[in-house]
Amino acid sequence: MLKWLVLLLPGTLAGVIDLAVDWMTDLKEGVCLSAFWYSHEQCCWTSNETTFEDRDKCPLWQKWSELLVNQSEGASAYILNYLMYILWALLFAFLAVSLVRVFAPYACGSGIPEIKTILSGFIIRGYLGKWTLLIKTVTLVLVVSSGLSLGKEGPLVHVACCCGNFFSSLFSKYSKNEGKRREVLSAAAAAGVSVAFGAPIGGVLFSLEEVSYYFPLKTLWRSFFAALVAAFTLRSINPFGNSRLVLFYVEYHTPWYMAELFPFILLGVFGGLWGTLFIRCNIAWCRRRKTTRLGKYPVLEVIVVTAITAIIAYPNPYTRQSTSELISELFNDCGALESSQLCDYINDPNMTRPVDDIPDRPAGVGVYTAMWQLALALIFKIVVTIFTFGMKIPSGLFIPSMAVGAIAGRMVGIGVEQLAYHHHDWIIFRNWCRPGADCVTPGLYAMVGAAACLGGVTRMTVSLVVIMFELTGGLEYIVPLMAAAVTSKWVADAFGKEGIYEAHIHLNGYPFLDVKDEFTHRTLATDVMRPRRGEPPLSVLTQDSMTVEDVETLIKETDYNGFPVVVSRDSERLIGFAQRRELILAIKNARQRQEGIVSNSIMYFTEEPPELPANSPHPLKLRRILNLSPFTVTDHTPMETVVDIFRKLGLRQCLVTRSGRLLGIITKKDVLRHMAQMANQDPESIMFN
Amino acid sequence: MLKWLVLLLPGTLAGVIDLAVDWMTDLKEGVCLSAFWYSHEQCCWTSNETTFEDRDKCPLWQKWSELLVNQSEGASAYILNYLMYILWALLFAFLAVSLVRVFAPYACGSGIPEIKTILSGFIIRGYLGKWTLLIKTVTLVLVVSSGLSLGKEGPLVHVACCCGNFFSSLFSKYSKNEGKRREVLSAAAAAGVSVAFGAPIGGVLFSLEEVSYYFPLKTLWRSFFAALVAAFTLRSINPFGNSRLVLFYVEYHTPWYMAELFPFILLGVFGGLWGTLFIRCNIAWCRRRKTTRLGKYPVLEVIVVTAITAIIAYPNPYTRQSTSELISELFNDCGALESSQLCDYINDPNMTRPVDDIPDRPAGVGVYTAMWQLALALIFKIVVTIFTFGMKIPSGLFIPSMAVGAIAGRMVGIGVEQLAYHHHDWIIFRNWCRPGADCVTPGLYAMVGAAACLGGVTRMTVSLVVIMFELTGGLEYIVPLMAAAVTSKWVADAFGKEGIYEAHIHLNGYPFLDVKDEFTHRTLATDVMRPRRGEPPLSVLTQDSMTVEDVETLIKETDYNGFPVVVSRDSERLIGFAQRRELILAIKNARQRQEGIVSNSIMYFTEEPPELPANSPHPLKLRRILNLSPFTVTDHTPMETVVDIFRKLGLRQCLVTRSGRLLGIITKKDVLRHMAQMANQDPESIMFN
Repeated sequence: MLKWLVLLLPGTLAGVIDLAVDWMTDLKEGVCLSAFWYSHEQCCWTSNETTFEDRDKCPLWQKWSELLVNQSEGASAYILNYLMYILWALLFAFLAVSLVRVFAPYACGSGIPEIKTILSGFIIRGYLGKWTLLIKTVTLVLVVSSGLSLGKEGPLVHVACCCGNFFSSLFSKYSKNEGKRREVLSAAAAAGVSVAFGAPIGGVLFSLEEVSYYFPLKTLWRSFFAALVAAFTLRSINPFGNSRLVLFYVEYHTPWYMAELFPFILLGVFGGLWGTLFIRCNIAWCRRRKTTRLGKYPVLEVIVVTAITAIIAYPNPYTRQSTSELISELFNDCGALESSQLCDYINDPNMTRPVDDIPDRPAGVGVYTAMWQLALALIFKIVVTIFTFGMKIPSGLFIPSMAVGAIAGRMVGIGVEQLAYHHHDWIIFRNWCRPGADCVTPGLYAMVGAAACLGGVTRMTVSLVVIMFELTGGLEYIVPLMAAAVTSKWVADAFGKEGIYEAHIHLNGYPFLDVKDEFTHRTLATDVMRPRRGEPPLSVLTQDSMTVEDVETLIKETDYNGFPVVVSRDSERLIGFAQRRELILAIKNARQRQEGIVSNSIMYFTEEPPELPANSPHPLKLRRILNLSPFTVTDHTPMETVVDIFRKLGLRQCLVTRSGRLLGIITKKDVLRHMAQMANQDPESIMFN
Repeated sequence: MLKWLVLLLPGTLAGVIDLAVDWMTDLKEGVCLSAFWYSHEQCCWTSNETTFEDRDKCPLWQKWSELLVNQSEGASAYILNYLMYILWALLFAFLAVSLVRVFAPYACGSGIPEIKTILSGFIIRGYLGKWTLLIKTVTLVLVVSSGLSLGKEGPLVHVACCCGNFFSSLFSKYSKNEGKRREVLSAAAAAGVSVAFGAPIGGVLFSLEEVSYYFPLKTLWRSFFAALVAAFTLRSINPFGNSRLVLFYVEYHTPWYMAELFPFILLGVFGGLWGTLFIRCNIAWCRRRKTTRLGKYPVLEVIVVTAITAIIAYPNPYTRQSTSELISELFNDCGALESSQLCDYINDPNMTRPVDDIPDRPAGVGVYTAMWQLALALIFKIVVTIFTFGMKIPSGLFIPSMAVGAIAGRMVGIGVEQLAYHHHDWIIFRNWCRPGADCVTPGLYAMVGAAACLGGVTRMTVSLVVIMFELTGGLEYIVPLMAAAVTSKWVADAFGKEGIYEAHIHLNGYPFLDVKDEFTHRTLATDVMRPRRGEPPLSVLTQDSMTVEDVETLIKETDYNGFPVVVSRDSERLIGFAQRRELILAIKNARQRQEGIVSNSIMYFTEEPPELPANSPHPLKLRRILNLSPFTVTDHTPMETVVDIFRKLGLRQCLVTRSGRLLGIITKKDVLRHMAQMANQDPESIMFN
């Protein structure tokens, strides 16, 4: 029963990370006098001056300039604060990259490409270990606080999967069965997204659509349960300050109109273009890092990028604040009490102050200033994210992508709003926007833009719409979101089919057989299997005629994972498959413990020992390690079927026979190379580590 | 492009069905004078007297007694209306059952068990035909209007799948590829649930969890798209009268409290018990119908059940109204303007009339009357639904199950509310229910009860919670719903693992291999394959030594679907598999068109004709029909793997070999029998039609 408490781990970790990030992000600006471990908000919350307007300026919270030189205004105070901001950012980033380098090299990146690969059947030892869990959690806090353009969502999925791996190591039922372990990991991935966004259903669908390779139905309920437990653990820790479950809670008061679909689709096009641009540039930069001397200085790279980010980000209020705060502000509808610069509209003095449903108003000076700052922030985010994602630190992509989309969307939204306000009589506005009505919600545009950009980068579809739907909690906006998501996917797919995760899988050369690719070519297993015509014959074992020395030589000369066992070299009739690892172990054990086993001993895989001439050495029985049911196809099997079998059964290799005679072998790598060849790609571009 | 308009079909049909049902249900009570095709609501909507209170009593709407004998009150008028109600119900039911019997016998039942079986790879010819589509749509309207205790949700899934089948018949890409056709059907099933409830995400998850057998990821997006298109087509037809998407739109004003989890879990237990009771009794009754003379009088059975239903239902207002109206009323929170009997609370005269957030009040006379009527309605619904589901008419189970749960839930809710009102000082209430506060929402209890009962019958989990979540549109109530759904599933599973659909699949003997059952026994393929020890050897063909006559005899004497082809009877080395159907066709064609083919002709499956003695008849080449890549496993393969392969690859049979020598065959039916045997069931209880 106690073991089940591990289920609470992802939610708790996410809560702790949120609290720590809040505190450390604010530490870059100042410190709380009453208790240094309070964030700005907590510090002022406990202060006595709780009038709504002054809450931001409570005396207990001191900026660094106030604390150090007792100045709160003026150029020197500004410069001091600026410097402190940069220093803290550099310190956090340096700590993070050092920790990752020294203790857990697998803690870097978002982890989603690797988890996809692991769930498809590949093993990366230590990738989901406890050490990775610990270091990734700590460094995630550091890098997010350092103000780099990255998010915590992808790494949270990795952290949750580490928890899941830890969980399955506690139960022998899961740790001994690779398939069951993968089911637990799928559920953990759902829990990760669930805590990242507070979207349990979206988390399950994300795990289903994006991460998991094979998703058995019984996993569905488990994933949902894990996602809910995680979401509610997080909620009871309550890092978002409101008792809501979700990260960005928004409530809009007006419906959308058919004519608005046009800007929404434009935002979709923007999202698709951004996705393409980002993937191309990021992959090119990462390839350069892999292949040139740049890759040898990861610490320096992180320091330089952090310094540039901090220097450029500080002067602009929209880049200085944390990215999730920025998104939250951009999503928000302007209420009557809103004091944000973005809500600096000119109010009609004749109007009584309503609570909801404020009609469209002309923009004030603040809004125009905000537009300029947002435009600069947009360019900055686009450029810096390309260089940030892929550095040797934990880095997620959801939040920066959403920020780019939200900025673009809010700008478009304000534009449409002002156009509609000043040109009520235009034919496109006349039908739905009377003077004095609240027709356009710029926050909705920000949300649609965020969905479009996230979709362009990750190519998520259903889970994306559902996550956004859970954020707003209204079915009303599902059509705008879908329109943007579909457009974005179409536009991005037109330039290249791969999402960022698949692109990174390719870049790293993981053997990943994508379930989404369709294979429709008419090739046969015989075209793909090895040995090809002219190649030396397959390395096989015979069932009762090879000596221990023969086998040891074979093992030494080849690096195959295993060897088919046939009746004899002449008949080539397949009887089973022996793993390299088990062969080595069995021979080693036999040589040490079994008497009479020498290099000349005959090894046999049959039930009965073969008839040997007198005074030949004692034979070695190895039937125990023989897999008597290796997976076979005939040479006439269409490759379409073979690919299907590899995918659905998660095979690593498959033997090819004709009427029981062994002809060759097809490995997963052969299948991948063949698929690349058929898609007119260079098969050698698929590297394997 | 025009073909894609088929996508609009499910939504449109659902809209038409809704409108027709509204009209015909009201026709049992009276008729609209201005236009006879108006339902009660439409009739009064267009009338001039549109004050809110009198809208139900507009002069244009005439009850049958008013129209026929010009009396609206009194015993004779009541009896006349009663009789008309019964007559119309009998007429509708008779028409429905006759149409089904004469034109489309497959149109009966809910159709979900059959669709599950079809998606698992079994073929029922005509089950998804256009004729079934038409008749099922028409008769669905008739039976729902007749007032029988059944719903339209299951049949709508069948109707949507017929549309999907029609759609795939338009594109050769889908009609020629069985796998792609199944993907379209999965998407159609999602669209069906989507229109039934207005829950697009729930529809997709229902299709995933309950209906589909193998759900490839690319189907996900298609299903979601189909579900959305269907939902919005339905919305633009707008049958529910409000511009909401969902069937039962509710908005609650108060949160739930931890202490309320106890009654929610009690409702879960009730749901589980109801599920068990219903499945047991319904299956027993259906078995009796199948095996006794009862099954020979389907029309009479429907007439009798309809008559009994109408006679008992009319006097009770909660059973007289349509079941979906009843559920809607039970789900609703009592607002200030509510005139329903269920909302007859005693108002505090000192209180101003608020719009929302009405505090708990003592129950009035109306509420107590309603409680009695609801109790009677509960018993009636429980009994009559058992006899209704499975008759030879279209019948869904969602709505009656939800009604049972909603009635029970509302009663529990009112009980808790009154307890809390009168006993504020009890320790369990003291923490969360101060006097004058709105603590208990009886409508929420109805919703939780409905979820629990639906879960007990169908054993849905995630999709159930999501459908309910989409109905309320708030994440707040996800925990009560989950608690009830999980409890209900646990309780019901304790009495028997099968949901109602699986039970009906078993009853009808469809070869369905459930993906949810785990197979963990240590048997091997050799234990399951046929021929068993002592049985005659397998019927095989040899590659070049059998005559046409030999094969014709073999075909005549056996009824196997196909025959393995081996090199010779001595070596028994497998070279392929020949389908019975194609063999018959090939021989027939050859005898008619090819010269020199006589009964003595040798049939050969090799590339080259065998060497024959001179003046032997012309041989017949059949390599073309030989499947050169039959699926094989070795005799040592664990049955766990075999079951997995059958499931994931949707096989119908699999050959068993050892080193290429054919040993036997395993069919899907063998696998099913073996699984039943291992689960200590009588394997003969699995009948196959």
